Amino acid sequence: MERTIDQAGKVVLRAAERDGIGTVWDRFEQQTPQCGFGEMGVCCRNCMQGPCRIDPFGEGASRGTCGATADTIVARNLARSIAAGTAAHAGHAKHLAHALLKWAEGKAPDYPVKDGAKLQSLAAKLGIDTDNKSTQELARAVAQAALADFSEKETPVAWAAVNVTQGRLEKFLKYGVIPTGIDAAISEVMHRTHYGVDADPINLLLGGVKCALADFAGCHMGTDLADVLFGTPQPVVSRANLGVLKQDAVNIALHGHNPVLSDVIAQMASEMNEEAVRAGASQGLNLVGICCTGNEVLSRHGIPSATHSVSQELALLTGAVDAMVVDYQCIMPSLGNLAECLHTRLITTMPIAKIPGAVHLEFKEETARKTAKEIVRLGIESYKNRGSKSVNIPPYEETSIAGFSTEAIVGALALLNKDDPLALLIDHIVNGNIQGVCLFAGCNNVRVTQDLNFVTMAKELARQNVLLLATGCGAGAFARHGLLTSAATNEYAGFGLKLVLTALGEAAGLGGPLPLVLHMGSCVDNSRAADVAVAVANKLGVDLDKLPVVASAPEATTEKAISIGTWAVAAGLPTHVGVVPPVIGSPAVTKVLTEDIRDFFGGYFIVDTDPVSSAAKLMEAIQARRKGLGL
Amino acid sequence: MERTIDQAGKVVLRAAERDGIGTVWDRFEQQTPQCGFGEMGVCCRNCMQGPCRIDPFGEGASRGTCGATADTIVARNLARSIAAGTAAHAGHAKHLAHALLKWAEGKAPDYPVKDGAKLQSLAAKLGIDTDNKSTQELARAVAQAALADFSEKETPVAWAAVNVTQGRLEKFLKYGVIPTGIDAAISEVMHRTHYGVDADPINLLLGGVKCALADFAGCHMGTDLADVLFGTPQPVVSRANLGVLKQDAVNIALHGHNPVLSDVIAQMASEMNEEAVRAGASQGLNLVGICCTGNEVLSRHGIPSATHSVSQELALLTGAVDAMVVDYQCIMPSLGNLAECLHTRLITTMPIAKIPGAVHLEFKEETARKTAKEIVRLGIESYKNRGSKSVNIPPYEETSIAGFSTEAIVGALALLNKDDPLALLIDHIVNGNIQGVCLFAGCNNVRVTQDLNFVTMAKELARQNVLLLATGCGAGAFARHGLLTSAATNEYAGFGLKLVLTALGEAAGLGGPLPLVLHMGSCVDNSRAADVAVAVANKLGVDLDKLPVVASAPEATTEKAISIGTWAVAAGLPTHVGVVPPVIGSPAVTKVLTEDIRDFFGGYFIVDTDPVSSAAKLMEAIQARRKGLGL
Repeated sequence: MERTIDQAGKVVLRAAERDGIGTVWDRFEQQTPQCGFGEMGVCCRNCMQGPCRIDPFGEGASRGTCGATADTIVARNLARSIAAGTAAHAGHAKHLAHALLKWAEGKAPDYPVKDGAKLQSLAAKLGIDTDNKSTQELARAVAQAALADFSEKETPVAWAAVNVTQGRLEKFLKYGVIPTGIDAAISEVMHRTHYGVDADPINLLLGGVKCALADFAGCHMGTDLADVLFGTPQPVVSRANLGVLKQDAVNIALHGHNPVLSDVIAQMASEMNEEAVRAGASQGLNLVGICCTGNEVLSRHGIPSATHSVSQELALLTGAVDAMVVDYQCIMPSLGNLAECLHTRLITTMPIAKIPGAVHLEFKEETARKTAKEIVRLGIESYKNRGSKSVNIPPYEETSIAGFSTEAIVGALALLNKDDPLALLIDHIVNGNIQGVCLFAGCNNVRVTQDLNFVTMAKELARQNVLLLATGCGAGAFARHGLLTSAATNEYAGFGLKLVLTALGEAAGLGGPLPLVLHMGSCVDNSRAADVAVAVANKLGVDLDKLPVVASAPEATTEKAISIGTWAVAAGLPTHVGVVPPVIGSPAVTKVLTEDIRDFFGGYFIVDTDPVSSAAKLMEAIQARRKGLGL
Repeated sequence: MERTIDQAGKVVLRAAERDGIGTVWDRFEQQTPQCGFGEMGVCCRNCMQGPCRIDPFGEGASRGTCGATADTIVARNLARSIAAGTAAHAGHAKHLAHALLKWAEGKAPDYPVKDGAKLQSLAAKLGIDTDNKSTQELARAVAQAALADFSEKETPVAWAAVNVTQGRLEKFLKYGVIPTGIDAAISEVMHRTHYGVDADPINLLLGGVKCALADFAGCHMGTDLADVLFGTPQPVVSRANLGVLKQDAVNIALHGHNPVLSDVIAQMASEMNEEAVRAGASQGLNLVGICCTGNEVLSRHGIPSATHSVSQELALLTGAVDAMVVDYQCIMPSLGNLAECLHTRLITTMPIAKIPGAVHLEFKEETARKTAKEIVRLGIESYKNRGSKSVNIPPYEETSIAGFSTEAIVGALALLNKDDPLALLIDHIVNGNIQGVCLFAGCNNVRVTQDLNFVTMAKELARQNVLLLATGCGAGAFARHGLLTSAATNEYAGFGLKLVLTALGEAAGLGGPLPLVLHMGSCVDNSRAADVAVAVANKLGVDLDKLPVVASAPEATTEKAISIGTWAVAAGLPTHVGVVPPVIGSPAVTKVLTEDIRDFFGGYFIVDTDPVSSAAKLMEAIQARRKGLGL
């Protein structure tokens, strides 16, 4: 299997092979064949009488030591994955809530509210009285409401309840899956998956859905608070792929997920440029992004994306990265070793995320700019150590238009229909210029030729006039392949879609269509796509599960992707996963996830590893929804 | 390997074998050989690029796909286990806090505060102003303080901070391991163990310790609130082992952990007795306990314990159990199948714990007595279905003295030294009549001949004048073997220990010594043992890690046991585990847990599967501590 379809990646991988340096692909090969029990989800390690495993072919043990069946084990494992994914998003959102609160309390002056209008509308949505409140007071109230959402209480998690349709909320209440506290929901899953608690697979899966809705709340809160603190993204033109690294610059890569540190670094990059030049870097300071931290600073500051996900090591292997600053999530531990072998300083910044081989420079919101400066300075020092070492920057970069927040999309629509921007989108869905909407999300996965599923599926769907949205590492994949451009629309969009995107792009002064794929942000920003869907549903007066809207994580890796996928299904979306999740050891659970759950929520999982047939299935789902709407 | 040393168990196992009915032991055999990677903790399933596994012998892969080493993987897995254990105890405690709050608010009349004095002292300990407060008001304040402890806040979890020595608290603060919210601590562990977050094994282990201290808080809260609601246990004489089932009674087994339902059933047993007799059961209604629910109703109502842990299926296999009512934790899913094959009704009661094959009768505190009645009635109905089916009740039961809460132990000491009860205990430790104290806790484990480690170690240590405390299924093991009796003291205690226990027992009017092992309650009641240690430490003016106090879970199974063991170590105790936990795939982590952690907290793990040498190692630790105190 080819490792990647990305030209830049191929260059660096060839060099790594030549130099005998292992990467994630080599380690994966060393891991294969992987344990089939684990792959199928039928391995249980939840007590010290285990590990137990069920023979999925019915020849070995049919029950674990305690009597758990494959159904119970698969459902328990899945629920725990959702809990972990939720915890990651929750931690991210909580962090921002603390930053906002600290600013409101005068403890973190480096976090002034940047988007007061979003703060206002957020407060209003939460039912907070906004009259005669200063920005500080409002910020405090919103931050406190956010922090309250983590604790168990008698009312639903606000960020889950106010961000869905009324019909959805009623469904969630009906099935008892509305969480009343984000951390409480995580804790409940960990309790019910403990030895000898929940053994009923359906009950466990509903527990997982409840936790996934807490994940939705965490994602949405992460988006909202980042917008309040750092500004709501607006379309921005930048570049993507390893070619954005510069030989004669101090290259600092910002990697991880939370803009809480990286945005501050981005804010002060210009101040530090001169220092980089003085250190001998004629091109000054060059910040680049990796993974979702990259998406955050791309969306708000136009900082180019070096790469994402599975290829993060390749950035270091160019030899051109002087410092890589990481916060948390999706940061391969291997970076520590690589950094030790290179001149690169790997800088960890979060107390909960240290990596052997890294320098740890703890970040606190109270002293954000100060720490940010120290970090950049470390990068400049490191550049000096690079000396005359040769770098291998592959000459590949693509234009990448990003920043399509919900507000930005509505803004673009408003250019053509000021009074009723959504009507325009709906009209085009009704008249068939846009057949439906597909949100691409999730990671790359070393099991899949990097970017192949993303790119193939996007082209297939675009040709059939599906409006494409993307977040996270999915958006990164499209960026690397030039699909976040007007040119891609001209090349790949079907007639109707091209028509709409061209009208919008020209009204926006792009001199061409909007990009083929609209980059909505980081993985928490899947909430933005949800907002668009909710707005359309509300306008049409139907629930989410009636819309021709689908989602796909064609190269998913993380537990976060599992929790996002689960809330997408609970939100009513046909949701494609392009790698086989560890559930197939239980045909019963697999059937629930891919079929029966539809009776509960309207959404369901589609598992297919072939991108062409996956696109066909999503297209089929879109057509069925259109039919349901009488279109 | 022999399955059990318990005579009653042997009888039922022989019959099961004859009838071709499989039990946990058979399923375990079917699982063997178990996966060595899982056993050693070097299997990672935290993302969909896995499962990965590290070859502990250095011949295969040394890193997971992401680059995680064995050290990272083992530490992550351990931290997640602690999170699950904590979640279980937290769920239990939270449940009681809700019951108390509902009573205070007039919504749950079946939960009147039974121990007002404990409520008072608990409130005072928490810094709640108790002046002029009604019991209701106090109950509400305490319940609210309890619920507040689950949410992240700026101050330490109260139940963790107020229940340790000042020195311990300072140590916890120094190492950043004091949790600020129980659910928040669980969530944090789940975040930091997500793909690409924490890769530093020490940092991960400290995160695990922080969560374990949240577990300590959960356990202590569980004990405190149960005492407030249902009364603080005082010594009670009962019986134990399968022989407590009665052929001509409606036998209802109460199984699980939380007294919130079972205590209400126990309270109304006498009311329902007549109904059972009318149904033809000449011996009326016979409630028996299993696992920690059993310990709870034993301690407060003298309800006999049928069995515990690994032998729970055997109770059903007697054919004499008409209904088994379960709440949550340690309830084998296999009970559902067994019940289907027998006349027994398995009744699940908690929304988070359903079992295929069971009847679900959801329990709410608001209607506790009503539901309890329905449940008992189901048992009576089921008795009628038993008809003339033969039962196989093994004729084994032992006297079992339980109910040794901290208050009861201090009360017993006060009989000999009213003004300064603890001084008496300390005097005997100083003069060597008591060499030290050992707390036995934890489960049985199918890997260990049932009860063998418990009984062997207790006899070894008692002979050497170690005062023995026990909780949970450990206490159950001692009960089955007659070690919770005066006779056992006479037979097995060393000279000094016998002297002390005899003086105390005679002062208490037992006409003989206190039992060889003091049964302190369920597994959350390990907090009671901690209280005794803290009181002694405070009185001596030394910290916990100086005391000749050790702990042992010689047949541990659950993730709860892992979290309890971890807080015992953090509390400064040498802590023995008699099964090999899934950590040995990382020699580095193993060394931290068994050696280096001592430099942090004074406590450390001792892993040894041989009960005789385990006892010797604990004795050595006790002697070293005595020496440290100049004794």
